[in-house]
Amino acid sequence: MKGAAYVGHGRLDVISVDVAPPGPGELQIAVAYCGLCGTDLHIAHGDMDTRVRTPLVFGHETSGTVAAVGAGVEGWAVGDPLTVMPLVWDGACAACLAGHQHICQNLVFVGIDSPGGLQQRWNVPASLAVRLPAGLDLRTAALVEPVAVAVHDVRRSELQVGDHAVVLGGGPIGVLIAGIARDAGAHVLVAEVDAARRSRITELGFPVADPAATDMAAEVERWTGGAGADVVFEVSGASAAVRSATALARVRGTIVVVAIHSAPREIDLQRVFWRELRLLGARVYQRSDFDRAVDLLQQGRIPVDALITHVVPLEQTASAMDDLAAGRAMKILVDVAGSEAS
Amino acid sequence: MKGAAYVGHGRLDVISVDVAPPGPGELQIAVAYCGLCGTDLHIAHGDMDTRVRTPLVFGHETSGTVAAVGAGVEGWAVGDPLTVMPLVWDGACAACLAGHQHICQNLVFVGIDSPGGLQQRWNVPASLAVRLPAGLDLRTAALVEPVAVAVHDVRRSELQVGDHAVVLGGGPIGVLIAGIARDAGAHVLVAEVDAARRSRITELGFPVADPAATDMAAEVERWTGGAGADVVFEVSGASAAVRSATALARVRGTIVVVAIHSAPREIDLQRVFWRELRLLGARVYQRSDFDRAVDLLQQGRIPVDALITHVVPLEQTASAMDDLAAGRAMKILVDVAGSEAS
Repeated sequence: MKGAAYVGHGRLDVISVDVAPPGPGELQIAVAYCGLCGTDLHIAHGDMDTRVRTPLVFGHETSGTVAAVGAGVEGWAVGDPLTVMPLVWDGACAACLAGHQHICQNLVFVGIDSPGGLQQRWNVPASLAVRLPAGLDLRTAALVEPVAVAVHDVRRSELQVGDHAVVLGGGPIGVLIAGIARDAGAHVLVAEVDAARRSRITELGFPVADPAATDMAAEVERWTGGAGADVVFEVSGASAAVRSATALARVRGTIVVVAIHSAPREIDLQRVFWRELRLLGARVYQRSDFDRAVDLLQQGRIPVDALITHVVPLEQTASAMDDLAAGRAMKILVDVAGSEAS
Repeated sequence: MKGAAYVGHGRLDVISVDVAPPGPGELQIAVAYCGLCGTDLHIAHGDMDTRVRTPLVFGHETSGTVAAVGAGVEGWAVGDPLTVMPLVWDGACAACLAGHQHICQNLVFVGIDSPGGLQQRWNVPASLAVRLPAGLDLRTAALVEPVAVAVHDVRRSELQVGDHAVVLGGGPIGVLIAGIARDAGAHVLVAEVDAARRSRITELGFPVADPAATDMAAEVERWTGGAGADVVFEVSGASAAVRSATALARVRGTIVVVAIHSAPREIDLQRVFWRELRLLGARVYQRSDFDRAVDLLQQGRIPVDALITHVVPLEQTASAMDDLAAGRAMKILVDVAGSEAS
């Protein structure tokens, strides 16, 4: 069987993967689709070389069906559709004991710290499997993981009906957050520097601003009648966005740090103090976020077609990653099952 | 009558102040004591020249008795002991309408934006007056305002019984936060660079570390059994403390920004994301914080004698401010009434 792997030195390759039967407590998955995301780019670019062991079959936004059931696994049968919540916690650290298993101090992220979904057969602990409803097609279902990220971000923000929310960064996660916040009853404004992405966001019915050409603080003040935004989602990873975020939030407003900031960022703590702002980190998801993501996708409340801009075979994973890095795509899915014949 | 005023160009002076009778709705206060604080230093050093109108009689940590009662004021009589909550809000902005009057978008801070308590007779709106219990001496009562700040900071943190709290910065506000957090059932560790302050903090029974000579992250990890601190109070205003704060907090822990940071600060947003930290601004106080501060002082639960290191006459305000700036004092009170004869 084939898999797409990071082989080190900033290189990706298609490799041959031995298929072992699923171990006790495991399911073997026939992977259908696997989405590519920003974290995968970090892996591919070598940014995470100190963390990953090569060759690493990566990928953690998956859908598929059960191909084989390991010993002791109950409730699953061959052919059942599923996705995977790719988190393994230790259950013993202070974070786990306090109920924050999803950010376990010793978290294993499947697809980074252990093999992921860019392979035709994939053995995973059955405890990570999330059942998919019969009516949800597997292409759409590959979005469950990123949708769960966005559900978690919105839940973490404690956004309320009628709130004004600003999303800084209109990539896939930003657009998902915008959609979920609007679906939850908020007014949503998106800031995005890329013109093509702005067009797509406008088509989705969101007001959108170019933060490089707009006085965002004045724009948000106007938009909120002088109050400021209830919630600001920082999804861009840009230092300029961090600098502006504190200027956009209302008194006691919330800023959610969604993006990965690989370097320390300057932040206006005087404004944090002055307006008693709240800055929250939001990372991955909890099981309830995954369940909600499945519901939202099944109910057709996520603009899937606007998000999935490319579907490519496994062999084109490397070039697809280049497209993603260059901003030529929103969400790219790898059609892992389509390479079945090999 | 005399007052201590900031007269511009980084200079303080004792000036003569005309005494008008209290207007309608006002009380005239015979000021007993007025504490000096960091904000007063900012005024005196000219940092707030764009905000203040000179000559400014400053001072906002006050105690005294009613000297005269203006028309229409009910419930107050000459001689009643009182302190002043020095905030005037507009009641009309988005912050006020949302119940956050204390951080009104157009807040007038008495003693900065209008005349303060470093004068022998002081007219203030009766709505700002906070009654003092008969048993509370006026010297102690001059601490109500800074104690209210610390009560607000601890309340904002949502500290719980049994929590581990780190206080970065062991000046007057830091020590008050430490005391109130301990009084509320928390374990408290103080970080302070100044050796004399560390001695005083040790005498108060707190474990204390020198952050310049200690690996604070390792120290807090050891102290909390690997979990990290539930709450970190950033009271120092130092950029190094901001950099370390994110390393000290547990998963989903809280960092409260108490200090004024006049320049943007670098912060480790990757850690904020990774541990889903919460960073909260905390500014001034609400009425309930003032009421709680009065209770704590009356019950003898604040180490007043360790905090008040100097009591000086009005004429020595300028040299007292120099002592404060040089770190030669914790809390300095000006004995305003003691200059009565002039």
